[in-house]
Amino acid sequence: MHRVYNFAAGPATLPEDVLREAAAEMLDYQGTGMSVMEMSHRSKPFEKIIGEAEQDLRDLIGIPEEYAVLFLQGGAWTQFAMAPMNLMHKGKADFVVTGSWAKHASKEAGKYGTVRVVASSEDKNFTYIPKLSRDMFDQDADYAYICGNNTIFGTQYHFVPDTGGLDLVADLSSCILSEPLDISKYALVFAGAQKNVGPAGVTLVIARKDLITDQVFKGTPTMLTYKTHLDGKSLFNTPPCYAIYICGKVFKHLKATGGLAAMQQRNQEKAALLYDTLDASALYKGTAQKDSRSLMNVTFVLNDPELDAAFLKGADAAGLSGLKGHRSVGGMRASIYNAMPKAGVQALVDYMRAFEQQEAKA
Amino acid sequence: MHRVYNFAAGPATLPEDVLREAAAEMLDYQGTGMSVMEMSHRSKPFEKIIGEAEQDLRDLIGIPEEYAVLFLQGGAWTQFAMAPMNLMHKGKADFVVTGSWAKHASKEAGKYGTVRVVASSEDKNFTYIPKLSRDMFDQDADYAYICGNNTIFGTQYHFVPDTGGLDLVADLSSCILSEPLDISKYALVFAGAQKNVGPAGVTLVIARKDLITDQVFKGTPTMLTYKTHLDGKSLFNTPPCYAIYICGKVFKHLKATGGLAAMQQRNQEKAALLYDTLDASALYKGTAQKDSRSLMNVTFVLNDPELDAAFLKGADAAGLSGLKGHRSVGGMRASIYNAMPKAGVQALVDYMRAFEQQEAKA
Repeated sequence: MHRVYNFAAGPATLPEDVLREAAAEMLDYQGTGMSVMEMSHRSKPFEKIIGEAEQDLRDLIGIPEEYAVLFLQGGAWTQFAMAPMNLMHKGKADFVVTGSWAKHASKEAGKYGTVRVVASSEDKNFTYIPKLSRDMFDQDADYAYICGNNTIFGTQYHFVPDTGGLDLVADLSSCILSEPLDISKYALVFAGAQKNVGPAGVTLVIARKDLITDQVFKGTPTMLTYKTHLDGKSLFNTPPCYAIYICGKVFKHLKATGGLAAMQQRNQEKAALLYDTLDASALYKGTAQKDSRSLMNVTFVLNDPELDAAFLKGADAAGLSGLKGHRSVGGMRASIYNAMPKAGVQALVDYMRAFEQQEAKA
Repeated sequence: MHRVYNFAAGPATLPEDVLREAAAEMLDYQGTGMSVMEMSHRSKPFEKIIGEAEQDLRDLIGIPEEYAVLFLQGGAWTQFAMAPMNLMHKGKADFVVTGSWAKHASKEAGKYGTVRVVASSEDKNFTYIPKLSRDMFDQDADYAYICGNNTIFGTQYHFVPDTGGLDLVADLSSCILSEPLDISKYALVFAGAQKNVGPAGVTLVIARKDLITDQVFKGTPTMLTYKTHLDGKSLFNTPPCYAIYICGKVFKHLKATGGLAAMQQRNQEKAALLYDTLDASALYKGTAQKDSRSLMNVTFVLNDPELDAAFLKGADAAGLSGLKGHRSVGGMRASIYNAMPKAGVQALVDYMRAFEQQEAKA
């Protein structure tokens, strides 16, 4: 069996143990005589799978009873509409725009009310997270919105903004579970699973239950009403069962390997390996400002873009996959989510140094 | 390895070959060094997977270029809103209500316009498909709506209604691919995959391209606009990649085993085995009217409901799973989708006869 180190931004690498278990259980899940893909979502075995997934996620993050945990569909893009449709009662929201996803979210929210951009880092191609203070937020708005980690631009919040008590909504698609999360500082967070959690096709939503009501924007579909899924315990209709099952395995894997504090330490070590390599190099240059660097997506360019193709070709040959940067930034992006082992980052760093030495000689 | 015959209504049994292939490819898809779950949706291997899935579906059904094929999320419930949000330009639709799902769909559509119930079989607990004629439809409506197969009540259309040219929208979740489909008679059909196609979490939409425009209900989310997904070729955002991959395998399996005409013949044989058993029995009674019987979901009751528990317990012990009927009908339901082998139906029929004989002696 051939396995590469997969640095793709998402869908992304998963723990090998999880994949091995899934393969072994594919035709017969724990003596049920069927695959989880074939299992009624109303059956006892599946109720156990989704129940344990929720509980394990609650244990990992420390999510109290006052917050709902929902397994939904449609990815972050669906949440860009669903959050304002459900939460914009006064018709005003404050957005911090730190990249393409926050910008898309702000435009989508604009369909349901007035969006004010509190701060933006677009002036420098989203290379930093703006300084924020509580006086910047309109206390009369429905909520403030941030995107916690900016996959494309390699930046990340290393603080939770002080909104002065204004409810905070956050897209944590690419950083959830990578470090401890104080959920009490948020009103609602969501995350497409396909980066740090599991396969594409399931979206986690964690939200304060008191925010989830019948009061929604006119014409909100039943499926885009949070209350539907809170009341239905994520089983209102058929959920993406198999994807939830894999997420559940990832949660158990994270618990067994030390939880979010251990994950944070490993992620810091992995990121340091890469950022130190960039900072010590004459060939590579990190694109994000140092205080805003992401632990999940390390973006960098080569000082000679004509070397990009050779760099990527050599990487591929060395079993290092998915390093091409997003077209809006160019260069390279190494996504080093939880499931990327330190050995993978070490292999990348070794390759980068060897490539640089070889080019210096050429 | 233990496998049961799984008669669940959905998620439902899948071809064993498909599961075996998926298990074998779990850690390394065709030498890529990664699982399809870990693969970027923008990668060449995944573009090939989704491209082939679409082409194989087009080949199976015979879908011409004028129709779009979309792989979406959110199940039929999302389509209950998405279809009217995109198609109800004049604000009127004609619904035929033949069961719970059509009724839910009609209520959801009522958020976006005026819904007229053209015919309903609710008077007899949805045990039949009403007779329909073209003069029943309002030619000034945006579209007519049917649910092709009624999973809960075990009824199915054995004709395509003549709407007099009015666009026809159909929920084919539980009958798509079970028999040949003349797509030219429909404007738009949709199907949650988890019955006859693949795992839960992907929804097929096949729609005439000229109907897909920017003209949508005010406040329609980007994700619920068909044009988003037509323009994005089902890759506007991260799709449910793994579920699409499994659907693709099912399509290839269907092509290799004779296509939809062969499937129809097998399904008719399977259903006949069961219905003949019901009709010859003093203990069992089919709940659907004969001319409306479903080939996919065979619903029946025992003449003494006190025997239900013993029937189900014995079935379970015989490796016949998922036979309990929906609570709104009671009794039993045997879902015999494409992937249920004839041997499974034979085993069920054998069990039913043995159970009846045993009870007759008791």
